[in-house]
Amino acid sequence: MSAFEARLQRIREHMVKESIDGLFLMMSSDLQYLTGVRRQPHNPTDDDKHGDELYGAFITPECGPIFVVPRMGASSYVRSQSEGRPWIEDIVVIDDGEEPLAVARDVLRRLGDPVKLGVSGRLWARSLFLLKEARPELAFVDASPMIARMRAVKDAEETRVMKEAGLITDRVFAAVLKQLRPGMTEYDIAREVDHQVIVCGGSGVSFHTGIVVGGEDICRIHAQDRKTGDTAVVPGASITFDFGVLWQGYASDFGRTIFCGEPTKQYRDYHDLVMRAQSEAIAVMRPGQITASELNRTARRVIEDAGAGDYFTHRLGHGIGIDVHEPPFLYELDHTVLEAGMCFTIEPSIRVPGGIGVRVEDVVQVTEEGGVSFSNFSRDYLVI
Amino acid sequence: MSAFEARLQRIREHMVKESIDGLFLMMSSDLQYLTGVRRQPHNPTDDDKHGDELYGAFITPECGPIFVVPRMGASSYVRSQSEGRPWIEDIVVIDDGEEPLAVARDVLRRLGDPVKLGVSGRLWARSLFLLKEARPELAFVDASPMIARMRAVKDAEETRVMKEAGLITDRVFAAVLKQLRPGMTEYDIAREVDHQVIVCGGSGVSFHTGIVVGGEDICRIHAQDRKTGDTAVVPGASITFDFGVLWQGYASDFGRTIFCGEPTKQYRDYHDLVMRAQSEAIAVMRPGQITASELNRTARRVIEDAGAGDYFTHRLGHGIGIDVHEPPFLYELDHTVLEAGMCFTIEPSIRVPGGIGVRVEDVVQVTEEGGVSFSNFSRDYLVI
Repeated sequence: MSAFEARLQRIREHMVKESIDGLFLMMSSDLQYLTGVRRQPHNPTDDDKHGDELYGAFITPECGPIFVVPRMGASSYVRSQSEGRPWIEDIVVIDDGEEPLAVARDVLRRLGDPVKLGVSGRLWARSLFLLKEARPELAFVDASPMIARMRAVKDAEETRVMKEAGLITDRVFAAVLKQLRPGMTEYDIAREVDHQVIVCGGSGVSFHTGIVVGGEDICRIHAQDRKTGDTAVVPGASITFDFGVLWQGYASDFGRTIFCGEPTKQYRDYHDLVMRAQSEAIAVMRPGQITASELNRTARRVIEDAGAGDYFTHRLGHGIGIDVHEPPFLYELDHTVLEAGMCFTIEPSIRVPGGIGVRVEDVVQVTEEGGVSFSNFSRDYLVI
Repeated sequence: MSAFEARLQRIREHMVKESIDGLFLMMSSDLQYLTGVRRQPHNPTDDDKHGDELYGAFITPECGPIFVVPRMGASSYVRSQSEGRPWIEDIVVIDDGEEPLAVARDVLRRLGDPVKLGVSGRLWARSLFLLKEARPELAFVDASPMIARMRAVKDAEETRVMKEAGLITDRVFAAVLKQLRPGMTEYDIAREVDHQVIVCGGSGVSFHTGIVVGGEDICRIHAQDRKTGDTAVVPGASITFDFGVLWQGYASDFGRTIFCGEPTKQYRDYHDLVMRAQSEAIAVMRPGQITASELNRTARRVIEDAGAGDYFTHRLGHGIGIDVHEPPFLYELDHTVLEAGMCFTIEPSIRVPGGIGVRVEDVVQVTEEGGVSFSNFSRDYLVI
């Protein structure tokens, strides 16, 4: 049995247990996880396809996955994605002249008129409205948390792919370092990263590359349509990197900090502190031993005890896999107990507004021996 | 009164007329249109922020816009976006340790306990579930069609920005043509396009660049995480371009076709046909004179009458503005009467699977004198 068939079987068992009659999942990471059919990557602005409020798949304990697919811009893609995946029961195509409401009614009837339907957490409101119009008896529940629990633990094949993504990320960073020069702006550096992601074999970036010279909040310098600014590298400045690659449908997420010139004492102190916070967190990433919020506190305490807590302003990290951010999250409200195979970013940072910034980030997997990092670029001082 | 204040006033009048107590719009093109606050561009894979199911703004006839914003990764961005926009009433920040449900209850109470709430068409299911849990009396309607009708007609300032986007697009294409060589793959060409978009001053691409050598369906050659393939340019091949830029928060969308070597008779015939279909459509784009579906038929008839109808497999075009695709759509089911100021792509094509492809695409505005194209690169035979 393939991994996808095993996952479909497991989600069907969940459905029966939770008295859910069926699922409707939009084209999403959840659907990729369960069926192997990948979504098309998001465009920077919204596009549309006729019938796209039903673009996704229905799965019940007895039947499906039945994909519903707009003719235009999607049907040939999904057909090619479904090749060699015999567990996909059918592909229903919505023609440009066809009413999605009629298609929804037909498919729901074919599924045996479900009442309780689990849906993607990010399914569109207008998809829900259409389904409700097609079958007013429908009640909806958020199915994503159930699938997220399955997705959180990576199997051997996912681990292999994510390790490869980590190695590609290391190569990208090494290639970028060779090109780095004082005078380059954050934006120049980000473009070099994006270029090297392709040169080094990645399918693309997993999120918009973030480069910051100094200690500013990356959101503050978000230049409307991109994520980096025009500050140039000068002696005495720190340059923080935050980028990731897509590789075989999985994401990496990586961070290091470069110093321009001879590192100052403040920089070295903060750099040491951030690296120590990360390594202490990685060391305790054992299954059954610690929760997400406790892991967050482990790293935070290192930085707080050194009096720099106010400069560490975000959570310690997040789950990662098909999506760059996925549950569990390493912060106060998440009490998930870590399990073997879970993967998290471990990304403590110190940002001094108007001053320097230091960050590090690696994807780390929970194992019996503690965390295993998928990227392994040096965590020593890096200078240009 | 600013354009945004005028738009807010108009949407409030709509709310009163339709007996809608308030709106909840996610960070989206709709919200950009009404308030000037731009969303952050979509990442290729999903990310998350704590509280992001409420990331957006509430607007009622009496109060708002009140933005609700996750602390992490969003609050400093929205604060900077709201500078100089006094029509924004407030920004409510959700801290990492705060329960979104409590925030939702507070804000809804502050809005006077609305019952009928208009929401973004693409609002997440889990946002609806949260709002419903916060206030079970809530009933939801899709507010996007109401806003789409306003957005369809571009005002003078939007027209100015979109014309500039068109000129940038022309410059990008001219720069790419200079680099084009036999032997380059579709992917090489797409990377050159993306590079020139930045060199020529665009903020980024408005959608993933699509380059096709020959007559294949672009979706068929979609290489998982990107939109172009590995077919190389050889003599006798057509190269179709489909790309757009983002400029000051607005999208362009553009197409031309290049032939490698001396154009064959079949290529010239199809090229002439596609250009004629486009020019006949543009000529009749007058306000009050024609509907979206009739405009679609006008162009389609030109290609069908020449016996090539089977090779023109998609709609004639789509509205465009903040998003690359927005209503109205030029296809059979859309009976919107064209109004002055509306902007559409006009993009007839002919694709012979296994053979050649020809496409053209321009953003064209409806005026009393017929359509006015925002991009003006030559529509003659283009060869390398």
